[in-house]
Amino acid sequence: MKDQTMYIPTLDDMLAARERIAGHVHLTPVLTSRMLNELTGAELFFKCENLQKAGAFKARGASNAVFGLTDEQAARGVATHSSGNHGSCLSYAAGRRGIPCTVVMPRTAPQAKKDAVRGYGARVVECEPSTSSREAVFAEVVAETGAEFVHPYNDPRVIAGQGTCSAELIEQVEDLDAVIAPIGGGGMVSGTCLTLSNLAPNVKIYAAEPEQADDAMRSFKAGHIIADDAPETVADGLKVPLKELTWHFVQRHVTDILTASDAEIVEAMKLIWKRMKIVMEPSSAVPLATILKNRDVFAGKRVGVIITGGNVDLDKLPWN
Amino acid sequence: MKDQTMYIPTLDDMLAARERIAGHVHLTPVLTSRMLNELTGAELFFKCENLQKAGAFKARGASNAVFGLTDEQAARGVATHSSGNHGSCLSYAAGRRGIPCTVVMPRTAPQAKKDAVRGYGARVVECEPSTSSREAVFAEVVAETGAEFVHPYNDPRVIAGQGTCSAELIEQVEDLDAVIAPIGGGGMVSGTCLTLSNLAPNVKIYAAEPEQADDAMRSFKAGHIIADDAPETVADGLKVPLKELTWHFVQRHVTDILTASDAEIVEAMKLIWKRMKIVMEPSSAVPLATILKNRDVFAGKRVGVIITGGNVDLDKLPWN
Repeated sequence: MKDQTMYIPTLDDMLAARERIAGHVHLTPVLTSRMLNELTGAELFFKCENLQKAGAFKARGASNAVFGLTDEQAARGVATHSSGNHGSCLSYAAGRRGIPCTVVMPRTAPQAKKDAVRGYGARVVECEPSTSSREAVFAEVVAETGAEFVHPYNDPRVIAGQGTCSAELIEQVEDLDAVIAPIGGGGMVSGTCLTLSNLAPNVKIYAAEPEQADDAMRSFKAGHIIADDAPETVADGLKVPLKELTWHFVQRHVTDILTASDAEIVEAMKLIWKRMKIVMEPSSAVPLATILKNRDVFAGKRVGVIITGGNVDLDKLPWN
Repeated sequence: MKDQTMYIPTLDDMLAARERIAGHVHLTPVLTSRMLNELTGAELFFKCENLQKAGAFKARGASNAVFGLTDEQAARGVATHSSGNHGSCLSYAAGRRGIPCTVVMPRTAPQAKKDAVRGYGARVVECEPSTSSREAVFAEVVAETGAEFVHPYNDPRVIAGQGTCSAELIEQVEDLDAVIAPIGGGGMVSGTCLTLSNLAPNVKIYAAEPEQADDAMRSFKAGHIIADDAPETVADGLKVPLKELTWHFVQRHVTDILTASDAEIVEAMKLIWKRMKIVMEPSSAVPLATILKNRDVFAGKRVGVIITGGNVDLDKLPWN
């Protein structure tokens, strides 16, 4: 397993990613809502990655990793551990290239998530819901297959891929003052930093995080990575900690990290569903939740808001 | 109150409507889903009127009626009776023109629907939930205000306005074989007939109806209007009967009327929410429900599917 974590991706990597994945991901639309503009006093431009292939921005990074492999690497396939969108998006990308993909998932992960990963063609290998079991099982998978490890976010290929999202956004919307995205492990925010710091350095970058998993905010304030101990939040895509590569970008280019409570996140989620008529995950509502409670920061500004994904269990909506 | 029901709207009326309402309604996007194409064997193009102003295609007809009034008429305002999208859409259009609007609604209508109508500025006048009370209260409103009556669908201005939807669709998607829309009172289907019979006469027009409110299908087979007696269906926007004007278009230009059960409608609705990540009403799922059960009719065809509206009560989803 090659160590990818030491290489800092560059603008050229993002531009190469954009070309590489063009046929495999959507150029997602930007939606606006007059009502939400009136409510926030800002002009909000929602970049709809919930409408992305496989329902999440992670199709970008995964596709960049998969289609950047040499034929020899590709023949051995890819592998990852994920109980969320990265697993299904890597499965999607591997399926597009027609190569093997293995996703290690805790046996306790929801059946729907395992089905989604399998639905795109990958093999699911179950582990116990502990870090030690996951690492042991994953090492076995790699030893057995020789598969290329594609980390959900601490991977330069993944970050370069996620950076294509804001590259589209600044072409779709002129004169943005700021972009805000949810932060978990920091893949999307790092990609946004990579792209905007090079192509639109005047655009401020904000990250939005659940209060109940506010490790990135605390890391940002402390000046070094702090990990949460098993956080619980409705925004279940945002529980993972920053890693070296994402910390590199966050500490250099993010203006601020804002937080919202679970109740505020659910309220913002409902507001977007009701007013914009789009289905998105709780994680995707964290930016609007923080904009609503930080009016002074965003009022009068043109703000890009990344809606990161739309894979939600319709039978278990957080307001039911 | 001028009788509008005898005049059959023409292509020129639709073209005039398109110009008149251009600044007041969205040119709504067309979405596609590879998964739904695979499932149906057809190429489906979803025209997303759930993303329309006020959340429904009825903003088109209502805007055409409101902005077509003379200044003298406009000063007296508009009025209608509706417990659904027409009420809020007429309120929206009247608000844009800055004229009075009164909507007569049964006192038993959901609070959320009354709030939506009031939210755009109209006055709500309540009646008892019976036809006789509604007619008596509505007559009082008109006598008192001199307001122009804008019927939800049996009105040439409304039908011409709804016809702008398929005028956009045939510009957005080339070489359609068919268009399918839900049918209740028949306003959207009539507008579709008006536009396509003139501009794209080779495109077949299908209407989709709940089995539990299949009056349009039975009318179509019988050759004259049959009204249901208080039908009950999850597709609550489709309970109203055809009227003279809509029957005129339906009997001349519709190829077939297909039906689906409430269970099939809910399943199709969930499929669209899950796969396309859009919020839409049960009524809007009826076309996909009928496509899924009439594979032989649509497989291999390029089919426009009108998603009519997105105003659903998130606290009372039909699968919860």
